[in-house]
Order: sequence, then structure tokens, then C-alpha cells
Amino acid sequence: MAANPKSAGWRLDPQIERDTVPVGDLPLCRVLLMNDANYPWLLLVPRRPDASEIAELDSVERAQLMAEIAETAQSLKAITTCDKINVASLGNVVAQLHVHVIARFRGDVAWPKPAWGAAPPCAYPPDAAAKLITALRQRLVLAAAT
Amino acid sequence: MAANPKSAGWRLDPQIERDTVPVGDLPLCRVLLMNDANYPWLLLVPRRPDASEIAELDSVERAQLMAEIAETAQSLKAITTCDKINVASLGNVVAQLHVHVIARFRGDVAWPKPAWGAAPPCAYPPDAAAKLITALRQRLVLAAAT
Repeated sequence: MAANPKSAGWRLDPQIERDTVPVGDLPLCRVLLMNDANYPWLLLVPRRPDASEIAELDSVERAQLMAEIAETAQSLKAITTCDKINVASLGNVVAQLHVHVIARFRGDVAWPKPAWGAAPPCAYPPDAAAKLITALRQRLVLAAAT
Repeated sequence: MAANPKSAGWRLDPQIERDTVPVGDLPLCRVLLMNDANYPWLLLVPRRPDASEIAELDSVERAQLMAEIAETAQSLKAITTCDKINVASLGNVVAQLHVHVIARFRGDVAWPKPAWGAAPPCAYPPDAAAKLITALRQRLVLAAAT
């Protein structure tokens, strides 16, 4: 599949790259797993250079972003049987537009508070991250990484 | 305008009602101003009974929710000239589906951390809330409240 010309010049933010493991590409977003075993936590990063606010995407891209949020949220809920999905686009620290999709459990280290900053990140044992990523790849309709 | 039959039986959550001042109704969501002068902070509450996750809305409703998020975010940014918009659907405490749209400033009481729980809510002086609501009503295409 040819890369969308609107993604030309896009590059994943280095801090996001350090904090995550890649899952694959949906039509608009790169999907990544946060390397934090405290919560099953995905990031969706639209491959659009210089975007930092959802409202900077055009209306077609925004609708696609919402479709990809719903698809990843449903997959994460089905795989984890979590109690609640948290969805957020904050970007106060990393400017590159990214959306958090986090599986939350009553009794997780931050519940019922938001996950950001509540506990130090706890890296996955390698097998656990790989198992979750395999389950996600079986549910999501991913393109080859661009 | 006749009420959408899919909104039949919907009622605003009592805790959200206590914490906010109504702004008006967009086609899907009730728009409310959080009574917290620390940040210009809107809530969008889809008028759909029993919804607690974005993924429980159908695809047309989700696209409309995204359009209303973008519309309110753009209006709030234009009115406040804030540095960043934070958008989030958490729902760990109040189950009724609601989306936060928060204007953030470098130097606000929580920056760069998320706004939830960072500082005790600080009620608006009446004139300040009324002024912000008037500015929002001039920009948003609101229906009569249903």
C-alpha cells in the first residue's frame, strides 16, 4: 500500500519511541504499547507532521481517528476484560499529537485516579508484552508499517 | 426541533449536574462548564442513556461526538487563547459517558500535569462564568435545551 502523501515528513517523537513498543499501523495512526505493566496502555499517533491538537486534523482524519480509537478500545477491552477504558489526548509534555487508550481495573495502582504519574512505569517482562501485542495484532486490521 | 428518540430516558448524572453550569445542547451532547475557575473546562455529555464507553456509541454517534469535540475545542481555544487543549473520556468515578475539553495554560495550577485532582475546584465569581458562557454561546451552534 502506497504511503499517504499527507504523512510525508512525519516521524515518531523520540520520547514516545523510547517509552513504547510498536504494535503496527492503522490507516491513520501508529499503534504502540506503553512499556508499563501497571496498565495495558496503548498510544495512537496520527501520522501527520506537526499536528499537536485533534482540531488540527481535517474532518475526515478526525472521523478516522475516532474510528481507530473505538477499534483499539474494543480490542483492548475484549483482550483484557478491564473495567473501564480511559481515552485521552493531553500533550502537555510531548507536543506530537497522540491519544492514550488505557485499560483500567478497579484495584489497579491508580484506580480511580487517572494513570498519568500515579506510579513509576514498570517495564513488562518480555514475554508479557509480546503476548499482549500478538493478541492485539490478531484483532486489529493493521497495515505493514510505513 | 423534535428530540431524538435515542435520547429518550437520558438524564444528566446528578454529580455532573452539581459540578457544572449548563451552556446548551449540541446535536449529540449537552455542553456544560465545570464550575472551576482554575481552568476553562467543558464537559460534553452525549444524550444517550446507559452509555459509559465511547465504543458503546454507534459509528454515526461517534463521528458526531468527534465533530462536537473539535467544535468545542476550537471555540475554547479561540476564546481563551490557551496553550493546549486536553481532551479526555475517563469515567472511573462518574459512569455516565462524558468528555472533558479543558483549556490549559503554561503556568496554570497543574501544568504540565493533568487537571484532575491537581487542585481543589475554585468556584467562578458569577460574572466570570456568565461571560465565558456568553462567549461560548456566540460561537457554538446550539439547539434549544431539550
